[in-house]
Amino acid sequence: MPAAADPALPGDCTCDSFHRGGFEVLQPVRSGHRAGSDALLLAAALPEDAKGVLADLGAGAGVAGLAAIAVNPGLEARLVELEPHMAHCARLSLQLPANAALAPRARVVEADATLGGRRRVEAGLADNSFDFVITNPPYYNPASERASPDTRRAFAHQMGEGGLEAWLRTAAAILKPGGMFCLIWRSERVDEALDGLRGRFGAVEVMGLHPRAGEPAPRVVIRAVRGSRAPLRLYPGVVLHEADNAPTAIAQALLNGLERLPFRS
Amino acid sequence: MPAAADPALPGDCTCDSFHRGGFEVLQPVRSGHRAGSDALLLAAALPEDAKGVLADLGAGAGVAGLAAIAVNPGLEARLVELEPHMAHCARLSLQLPANAALAPRARVVEADATLGGRRRVEAGLADNSFDFVITNPPYYNPASERASPDTRRAFAHQMGEGGLEAWLRTAAAILKPGGMFCLIWRSERVDEALDGLRGRFGAVEVMGLHPRAGEPAPRVVIRAVRGSRAPLRLYPGVVLHEADNAPTAIAQALLNGLERLPFRS
Repeated sequence: MPAAADPALPGDCTCDSFHRGGFEVLQPVRSGHRAGSDALLLAAALPEDAKGVLADLGAGAGVAGLAAIAVNPGLEARLVELEPHMAHCARLSLQLPANAALAPRARVVEADATLGGRRRVEAGLADNSFDFVITNPPYYNPASERASPDTRRAFAHQMGEGGLEAWLRTAAAILKPGGMFCLIWRSERVDEALDGLRGRFGAVEVMGLHPRAGEPAPRVVIRAVRGSRAPLRLYPGVVLHEADNAPTAIAQALLNGLERLPFRS
Repeated sequence: MPAAADPALPGDCTCDSFHRGGFEVLQPVRSGHRAGSDALLLAAALPEDAKGVLADLGAGAGVAGLAAIAVNPGLEARLVELEPHMAHCARLSLQLPANAALAPRARVVEADATLGGRRRVEAGLADNSFDFVITNPPYYNPASERASPDTRRAFAHQMGEGGLEAWLRTAAAILKPGGMFCLIWRSERVDEALDGLRGRFGAVEVMGLHPRAGEPAPRVVIRAVRGSRAPLRLYPGVVLHEADNAPTAIAQALLNGLERLPFRS
């Protein structure tokens, strides 16, 4: 699908296919965050047969949220995105013929995921209303990291004044008690995530994503249950690439929506 | 060596051999903390050819500290133990013939590892004087956990008023800048360790110890460098047992002092 030629599309877009053609997403070539394996691995953090309503906070063009509903037939998604250009891409993606079967279970919410109180509710994110919240926060744009030598400040700037804390506050507020939160995050700042979860979530589960066997995990997937008092679990990490850089069998299955991350809950 | 028959020994003791006969430690049968694989794995966290002076905080009968100097010929150990009975075991252990080669490089410091300021210095723990600090804090006595339904309070009680924080404060104070801290700790409270390290240490390295492949890691080994600004690294975990409960090859090598934990620094 030559998306860039479509007059309804905002500038240079590509139409990217995921889950071996299971769904398609329009993404801007030059601006915004282009989703890839992180968004797909985040969706693979959900338990088998996840049901109810999911919010994808900072959804971008919607890859994680669409991947989530593609493999969980009982799930609906709200793709929450502040940036109008990206939200527009997400809305247009829902109109693609390839997504006709999924679109009835997805809706774009153009809103700031870090809003609080009444403004958050008015934006369509009511308290205690979601069964799942997933997020691949926008700090993770490699381009922006290159733009600033001060990585910490660059993160905070991109994520809004409140940093990750504001995202976790929203997740805790809009999840039902017992609802599950899934985050993909930088391992080097895992302490910040654990601090923000404390007191709001329990049953925290941490799983590293290792580029190759024996290497540290630059990214980590964290799951947590709102209001749970169960202790933290550190899971064995998942190795994504063989020594020759080819994806491992588990990585291929995860990225294609055929497997879930090996949490045992 | 039938230690219990020795009149100089405090009550019922066993003489336990470690590192395939490399050293021996007298440990009380009924009271105090009996060291085992945790202490040996902690010693295996040290880098190859660690040199200088090491403090083993809460050394018990001295297994971790002795294991550390057994495999690092350029290392001396101070076995810091508050409990007189355990400190006595450690001193007697240093007199065992099997430890004749190691004893000149080890000394028992009967002191509270959580002391602060002048009292800590007077106890023999001068500021900026150690190259390595290792600790297997006393929270980890399974007997005490059974004794109290409130695990969190039991931990804090056993570790003294300050909890882990007081141990980390001492470690940061007595290490030289650039000195390395190694901790074996409960994964479920990893956030507490990371919080206590922040601002004092960098280059934090986390490695889970998984009882069996695919299982969460109840314990974690954490290394950190005083004053470093390097980011945290989450390493692949180490699997300790095969499915039939036999120790894995790597576990055997680690417990026998033949390998180090696979940090890559």
